[in-house]
Amino acid sequence: MKTHSFDVAVIGTGPAGLQAAIHASRKKVSVAVVGKIPKSSAYKAHVENFCCMPYATGEDLLAQGRQQAEKFGAVFFDEDVVSVERQAGAFRLSLEGGDALEAKALILAMGISRKKLGVPGEKELLGKGVSYCVECDANFFRGVPVAVVGCESAAVSGALTLLFTTDRVHLICEKLQVSENLAEKLRESAIELHEGRRVVEIAGDGAVEAVVLDDGSRIPVQGVFIERGAKGALEIATALGVDLDPESFQYVVTNKKQETNVPGVYAAGDICGPPWQIAKAVGEGCVAGLEAADYVRKLGEAD
Amino acid sequence: MKTHSFDVAVIGTGPAGLQAAIHASRKKVSVAVVGKIPKSSAYKAHVENFCCMPYATGEDLLAQGRQQAEKFGAVFFDEDVVSVERQAGAFRLSLEGGDALEAKALILAMGISRKKLGVPGEKELLGKGVSYCVECDANFFRGVPVAVVGCESAAVSGALTLLFTTDRVHLICEKLQVSENLAEKLRESAIELHEGRRVVEIAGDGAVEAVVLDDGSRIPVQGVFIERGAKGALEIATALGVDLDPESFQYVVTNKKQETNVPGVYAAGDICGPPWQIAKAVGEGCVAGLEAADYVRKLGEAD
Ligand SMILES: Cc1cc2nc3c(=O)[nH]c(=O)nc-3n(C[C@H](O)[C@H](O)[C@H](O)COP(=O)(O)OP(=O)(O)OC[C@H]3O[C@@H](n4cnc5c(N)ncnc54)[C@H](O)[C@@H]3O)c2cc1C
Ligand SMILES: Cc1cc2nc3c(=O)[nH]c(=O)nc-3n(C[C@H](O)[C@H](O)[C@H](O)COP(=O)(O)OP(=O)(O)OC[C@H]3O[C@@H](n4cnc5c(N)ncnc54)[C@H](O)[C@@H]3O)c2cc1C
Repeated sequence: MKTHSFDVAVIGTGPAGLQAAIHASRKKVSVAVVGKIPKSSAYKAHVENFCCMPYATGEDLLAQGRQQAEKFGAVFFDEDVVSVERQAGAFRLSLEGGDALEAKALILAMGISRKKLGVPGEKELLGKGVSYCVECDANFFRGVPVAVVGCESAAVSGALTLLFTTDRVHLICEKLQVSENLAEKLRESAIELHEGRRVVEIAGDGAVEAVVLDDGSRIPVQGVFIERGAKGALEIATALGVDLDPESFQYVVTNKKQETNVPGVYAAGDICGPPWQIAKAVGEGCVAGLEAADYVRKLGEAD
Repeated sequence: MKTHSFDVAVIGTGPAGLQAAIHASRKKVSVAVVGKIPKSSAYKAHVENFCCMPYATGEDLLAQGRQQAEKFGAVFFDEDVVSVERQAGAFRLSLEGGDALEAKALILAMGISRKKLGVPGEKELLGKGVSYCVECDANFFRGVPVAVVGCESAAVSGALTLLFTTDRVHLICEKLQVSENLAEKLRESAIELHEGRRVVEIAGDGAVEAVVLDDGSRIPVQGVFIERGAKGALEIATALGVDLDPESFQYVVTNKKQETNVPGVYAAGDICGPPWQIAKAVGEGCVAGLEAADYVRKLGEAD
């Protein structure tokens, strides 16, 4: 369990994070980039509207972007961030594998990942027991049974977080996809794992009463947290005190310098709202990378 | 002399204009793109910091971007815009070759082109007779002799404009590079052309008194307009009533939707200020293209 120190940490390895890493590295500050490239929205894309390249698969673009960033000195960590804290003017990121990162400035480039389950009851009971954000809503479910649906780090660390407010936590997942470290924490915890099962319905009349699984079994719960993907933008942003847009509470608000309301925290790409396009993501990434590097350099001068 | 009608006109064929054209065209509005690709700042660039492509020459990138835009339906006019007017809710662009374009929405993507001469006296006498903007400053030189330095459409049309306020206009230029139409207007005018000559000094003590040419001759003038490039951003923006940034008066101000203060007029790329980077240019171009297309569609619905 090591702690790695950098000037700038970029969370996210999509076009926004990669471009931010390229521009920050070229300003000669040390840059860490954290995330799993295949989880980028662009990974499966067939891109023909991004100027100025004829056609490319997202997979090729991202591999190329990583090479560029590495060439300028950025260091990659192919893991999810499971939590972020502010500590004495710096940011501390806990990684899925157990290591930690410390950085003076942070660039949030986690994209959007509000992946729906698409089962009956999910839409109807949203806000009535169905939630996509453990950090935001855990408090509403003190001492009552809850379920988390998902197989990745967000689901597992969300379930672990819920143990602080209730002791009856179910985790429903077809096939677990987390680091050994996180899997072990899960095994050692009081979480009840239903592996190999799928949720086919969220049942309830005006409020969640149970989740129904594909083997026909019913688990009585009052809350269902859908966490399919990495730890979402909202959780990490919320934990840092970053403002979300006041209309939908779904996007991080920035100014033209890609600064959030929290000094040292920048954001770029889909996480900042539509249009969800690679061109916009790299544009905001470029600005965020340059500004974060400047921020760190000014801190240095003030010392 | 024809008038061509389009939904959206993009002025500028750099990365910002090309990306705007790609995104607007894909929204099924008709798009014209006006400008000379070799005049883009990116044309001579060797690009290695633009995600996600390994290395490319600017020339290749721009040729590629044009192909993409054309594939989606954008129509290119390889000329400079010499003036823009608002007319009954639409914009009318006069092209160097004599044709006109009419459009419902306008995207300003003209980059920056405050090209200096780099001669003694230029810096010292800035604002004391030296100017980079005919439209902005012509009025200060009513009835006194002035010189315009430059060989392209901005210089020639600037010199023609100055004839409205004074009758002694010198144009100093090594080799004229304008359309036959503009060259003819020049020949028919009262402008005194010094072709094949270079300015080596701007002379004056506290105020411009003369320009000194490379053959040693002195032309007594009170104003020197340096117009090296296409009609600059400032002139066209000023003519439309677009707000410039209040600090430097050098950049067009936009919000996050790339809207200027004038309804229907958007801006993207270097013209909106630093950082001057291709990534930022395409990011803003993407947003401007989508927003301009939406604007035109809403006009249509209102009809
Ligand atoms: C099927 C599809 C096709 C598309 N086609 C096009 C197209 O043709 N043209 C176009 O311009 N756009 C297209 N898009 C949109 C485009 O992919 C996105 O706009 C772009 O990827 C956004 O970039 P981003 O960097 O903001 O986010 P993303 O690319 O989504 O990257 C987010 C990154 O954050 C990481 N991450 C998230 N949470 C964490 C965490 N807790 N810890 C660590 N890392 C984390 C993820 O692993 C990922 O690497 C398409 C999208 C999809 C889904
Ligand atoms: C030598 C050099 C190297 C560079 N290297 C890099 C690099 O490696 N990476 C990077 O990211 N950036 C680089 N840049 C910066 C980059 O080129 C610019 O940020 C980018 O080109 C801006 O795009 P733009 O579309 O806003 O403006 P431009 O690319 O400058 O395009 C402006 C366009 O407007 C047109 N125009 C202007 N006036 C008129 C008019 N009156 N009528 C019609 N058309 C008009 C011009 O003809 C031109 O097509 C470099 C710049 C230079 C000068």
